[in-house]
Amino acid sequence: MTTITIIGSGTMATAIGTRAARHGHTVELMSRNPAQAQALADRIGDGAIVGTFGARPAGDIVILAVLYAGAVDAVTHYGEALAGKILVDITNPFNADGTGVVTTPGHSASEQIAAAAPESALVVKAFNTIFGGVIAEDQPVDLFFAGDSAEAKARVAEFLESLGMRPLDAGGLGMAHALEWAGILLVGVARNGAGFDIALGARAL
Amino acid sequence: MTTITIIGSGTMATAIGTRAARHGHTVELMSRNPAQAQALADRIGDGAIVGTFGARPAGDIVILAVLYAGAVDAVTHYGEALAGKILVDITNPFNADGTGVVTTPGHSASEQIAAAAPESALVVKAFNTIFGGVIAEDQPVDLFFAGDSAEAKARVAEFLESLGMRPLDAGGLGMAHALEWAGILLVGVARNGAGFDIALGARAL
Repeated sequence: MTTITIIGSGTMATAIGTRAARHGHTVELMSRNPAQAQALADRIGDGAIVGTFGARPAGDIVILAVLYAGAVDAVTHYGEALAGKILVDITNPFNADGTGVVTTPGHSASEQIAAAAPESALVVKAFNTIFGGVIAEDQPVDLFFAGDSAEAKARVAEFLESLGMRPLDAGGLGMAHALEWAGILLVGVARNGAGFDIALGARAL
Repeated sequence: MTTITIIGSGTMATAIGTRAARHGHTVELMSRNPAQAQALADRIGDGAIVGTFGARPAGDIVILAVLYAGAVDAVTHYGEALAGKILVDITNPFNADGTGVVTTPGHSASEQIAAAAPESALVVKAFNTIFGGVIAEDQPVDLFFAGDSAEAKARVAEFLESLGMRPLDAGGLGMAHALEWAGILLVGVARNGAGFDIALGARAL
């Protein structure tokens, strides 16, 4: 088990932080709103701690659980504090009505974040094809991820497995855009009859 | 059970036609290559018939099982022969290395096909997030679809259920572009360790 840092204190930070703590990880929470981070740490319990937004994270894996609109700003604010870290982008850059994305191929949120982060930071896309409520349920579930660093992906896959998830490698960071559209598909299916208690996956026959 | 028309005689035509015939549907095959259509009809058996490429299809549901590059041409060739039909677009408009699509939001293959088809034809996107080999295995599996006509989608969903598939409605035809990217995700996951014996789905918890 290891220390996982989560930047953010919203729904996804809560869901991932809670599941990580339940599976034996130490969770560090960092938020622009320290009171909210502390409240979430208290709620998660299991030794969850609060770090200072913008300071060097304690975890090697740093989950960027902020909205897409603030993600590059947050990474820029951290700057060199993220050097050498595995940066997990979970954002969904949806348009206003959730029918498409505001990014374009080659310029996914992950690729924008990688461009803003220190060169030694390794960006992995994950956690954007599952609803927070499903993460919180703590059931076995598929989880797609993508990234250019095999080492970073292996670490993230190990983390996902420790949470009882089946990691599914989609390829390089260029696949992050396909995952953004998969987020749109998830919402489309949820809205059109399947409901929100679902996650995308790949059925092996 | 009903008559299903398949335009095409390749891998996907074979997989869908075989599965449809096994589940009691009469399959009509139409191909630019009549000899190939006849060979496929013989292989499928179960009363499969061959129609003339460009003539009015026998089935109310017409599966356009041709490559993306030839799909609009085929629909244009059929012209008014497709009036009132439910036209199922299964194409994947992949780029040369399969890392992205050559379409753009609002101009998916399905939307291009709808623009080329008679106004009374109803286009539904389906069958592009599953490998042909998986269709042929005849196991229960999830199948995403999208379209603007509720009536056409209900008919397609009924057809999918008759094949032992779980239809998952992703929304309007604008969602076809998300499904095209989901096709990219499917291939990405297959190439990066999951193998090709998979289909995308939505796990309900």
